[in-house]
Amino acid sequence: MKHFLSINDIDSLPNWVNEARSLKKNPHNHKALGAEKTIGLLFFNNSLRTRLSTQKAAMNLGMEVMVMNFGNEGWALEYADGTIMDQGASEHIKEAAQVVSQYCDIIGIRAFASLNDKAKDEAEVVLNGFKKYATVPIVNMESSVGHPLQAFTDAITLAENTSKVNPKVVLSWAPHPKALPHAVANSFIQMMQMQEVDFVITHPKGYELDPNITKGVRVEYNQRKACENADFIYVKNWSSYSNYGMVLNQDPQWMITKAKLGNAKFMHCLPVRRNVIVEDEVLDSDQSLVIEQANNRTFAAQLVLKKMLENLK
Amino acid sequence: MKHFLSINDIDSLPNWVNEARSLKKNPHNHKALGAEKTIGLLFFNNSLRTRLSTQKAAMNLGMEVMVMNFGNEGWALEYADGTIMDQGASEHIKEAAQVVSQYCDIIGIRAFASLNDKAKDEAEVVLNGFKKYATVPIVNMESSVGHPLQAFTDAITLAENTSKVNPKVVLSWAPHPKALPHAVANSFIQMMQMQEVDFVITHPKGYELDPNITKGVRVEYNQRKACENADFIYVKNWSSYSNYGMVLNQDPQWMITKAKLGNAKFMHCLPVRRNVIVEDEVLDSDQSLVIEQANNRTFAAQLVLKKMLENLK
Amino acid sequence: MKHFLSINDIDSLPNWVNEARSLKKNPHNHKALGAEKTIGLLFFNNSLRTRLSTQKAAMNLGMEVMVMNFGNEGWALEYADGTIMDQGASEHIKEAAQVVSQYCDIIGIRAFASLNDKAKDEAEVVLNGFKKYATVPIVNMESSVGHPLQAFTDAITLAENTSKVNPKVVLSWAPHPKALPHAVANSFIQMMQMQEVDFVITHPKGYELDPNITKGVRVEYNQRKACENADFIYVKNWSSYSNYGMVLNQDPQWMITKAKLGNAKFMHCLPVRRNVIVEDEVLDSDQSLVIEQANNRTFAAQLVLKKMLENLK
Repeated sequence: MKHFLSINDIDSLPNWVNEARSLKKNPHNHKALGAEKTIGLLFFNNSLRTRLSTQKAAMNLGMEVMVMNFGNEGWALEYADGTIMDQGASEHIKEAAQVVSQYCDIIGIRAFASLNDKAKDEAEVVLNGFKKYATVPIVNMESSVGHPLQAFTDAITLAENTSKVNPKVVLSWAPHPKALPHAVANSFIQMMQMQEVDFVITHPKGYELDPNITKGVRVEYNQRKACENADFIYVKNWSSYSNYGMVLNQDPQWMITKAKLGNAKFMHCLPVRRNVIVEDEVLDSDQSLVIEQANNRTFAAQLVLKKMLENLK
Repeated sequence: MKHFLSINDIDSLPNWVNEARSLKKNPHNHKALGAEKTIGLLFFNNSLRTRLSTQKAAMNLGMEVMVMNFGNEGWALEYADGTIMDQGASEHIKEAAQVVSQYCDIIGIRAFASLNDKAKDEAEVVLNGFKKYATVPIVNMESSVGHPLQAFTDAITLAENTSKVNPKVVLSWAPHPKALPHAVANSFIQMMQMQEVDFVITHPKGYELDPNITKGVRVEYNQRKACENADFIYVKNWSSYSNYGMVLNQDPQWMITKAKLGNAKFMHCLPVRRNVIVEDEVLDSDQSLVIEQANNRTFAAQLVLKKMLENLK
Repeated sequence: MKHFLSINDIDSLPNWVNEARSLKKNPHNHKALGAEKTIGLLFFNNSLRTRLSTQKAAMNLGMEVMVMNFGNEGWALEYADGTIMDQGASEHIKEAAQVVSQYCDIIGIRAFASLNDKAKDEAEVVLNGFKKYATVPIVNMESSVGHPLQAFTDAITLAENTSKVNPKVVLSWAPHPKALPHAVANSFIQMMQMQEVDFVITHPKGYELDPNITKGVRVEYNQRKACENADFIYVKNWSSYSNYGMVLNQDPQWMITKAKLGNAKFMHCLPVRRNVIVEDEVLDSDQSLVIEQANNRTFAAQLVLKKMLENLK
């Protein structure tokens, strides 16, 4: 692995999960590894968990951290080749990526989908721009189509919470007032395909995700049926993929309730809207893993950074 | 002390003042105490002194610091229980506080009064939300009703500047073009009640503070009379408490002048509007303690953090 | 040197260039120098390179770094003496500078020209306000009239790329859609006057810079003629100085092309608008030094900070 751009950059998920769980036990054991190394965290969108957990992961490894918000501290970048740059963008990704590479040993990038231009979102212009022109490793801190640090975190959390062979995992859509990206769902699905699990996706008609990602995965449009006998129910809203970026359905019947949960564990990447995505009774029960998921973000990021630092030596 | 939420979390003010003055002499003597410990400073409002002095205090103790501005780097939080979160707020304080607790060993919170909803401000929803759900110690970096780090700073500054028994201390309101919170005045009054001082508050009629805080304290509506023979005049604007958040008076006669100051020392928490709150001649004189007050912010914060770190061991 | 406010604060440019080139070879050799020292970087304007390279320089020296954006994290400051501060500004530079000096051993300031009030811009109110009232060394991270860290960087880059006696250096104006400050051009010209170079400035009529800065320097209005046989072409847009802050000309004929470049090296401080300031073919060629210039920003800043830290001992 040079870059960590998608869940496919993990060569062996079971090994990575084991290593991350070891790091969690002794997070400060590798402080020398990051000495005199700097990570730059570039935010094109807001962030709470990713911002703090990735900083924490880097500090646990002894790295220096520089955080920059492109919106209000920097300026708009141009990504297209050959443009006459006489409009809003002040700097081309070619220069920005090469320049930041000189100040940082690793660069983290967060740049969400616009949800109004599918082709542009799928081209991952920000992430791929940095990948193409940066001269140092890039970490995806959530891009247009993927959130692999979250998916890797979820794999750690699953492993911590079951020893069952072939557990049943459900990815359920739930309603939300705003149009949200597909990144978390996409990476979770890809990660599920690397595991021995009985996996099913459930969502209303019209919310089918990118068929290149869901191919071979069972989709069950009846949420109650999908959730029956589940061991884990992973919940996430996303906007329509076919009617790109549209909110087609806000049916509160799709909210996750204690009744639907049964004996399953509840997972969500957070932030979560209470009593819209999931009822209080679920989140406030012992079956909710969401706080531990957020905790595992640190160790997922820390393992990725540790592997990058080892490669830099 | 688990949390530092109000001046009442100080068990012995004289001891704390002495300890903070020792720290001031040797600020780097406890660097090992904060090793591998992280403080998260969460700002829901702007800050200069609190931001920099609290960072500095933490770094003096060897801690790692993560700063986050909730306004432009994060999102709106929900504080009420049982809400259907289909409006502006993306995350509930229950999750936010628990999550941040996993990345930080101590959390600092700044969240001002709204000044338009007295009941909500007095409920201290942000600070108390973090107190309720966080699993780590919380430091109040100015909340709706109190600014105890400032009041503790002021106690240090008073101690440095007098050896007199029972000095006369005046808290004087002064005019300001905008509606300001009551937090600084409230905490100063509470701190005065822990000291052997001859304490008097002066303000125009209609600017009476919360009677639960001022009970037993002398109020003198004649500013000149209040200031006579004062040893310290502590100046601060606040908006009306009874006509909650209103600016009722901007009478420039209430500005502090050299004539009113007499031989007293001048104190103010800053930022201060020159020639509105106080005339240049006062601020530029040797009688002004405002710069040293700001300096003492570091050591007030450092003592609070030091005590919390000692508790964590 | 106490402060680093302009290129004139460099006592011997050749020595500084040599020392910075040594630091570049061993950037972590002086980590003990900055131990227990803090730099505060105050941004009144956006920044990418300056923000990250100055942080990096400070961290290379073992310093702690505190970054503050005055726009969205702080408030407006007042600079005039004797003002009745009943308008937008909440705090006077007198207090702000003295206060920040107590939390920081060195303060860096970025505050651009307004481009609408020449007298105010030339008075350098922000930078000179900090210089006047701060009690610690000040570093200019680009002010109204100068960008000496950039000019020093450029001197390092020139030295790395020529061993020629008296190389020909051209400073060429190029078109840009927005009104830009004169700071980079001013400091570059002053730096050129400290060197043994054949120096010529070229720009359209109406774009003459401050005659106090350009006095004695050859100006050639024919860009092609100016560029003939150049060893280095340094390109920068600036707005009119006589019609202060106006964009008088956007003639694309002034863009730098491969044909105009000849065998010269291309320099620019970045960010640069491709195919407006300079065509892709130049930036993407081996003759472009812009990425190495950006890299040298770290070592220029690091030498300035190193000298300041040595003075503090």
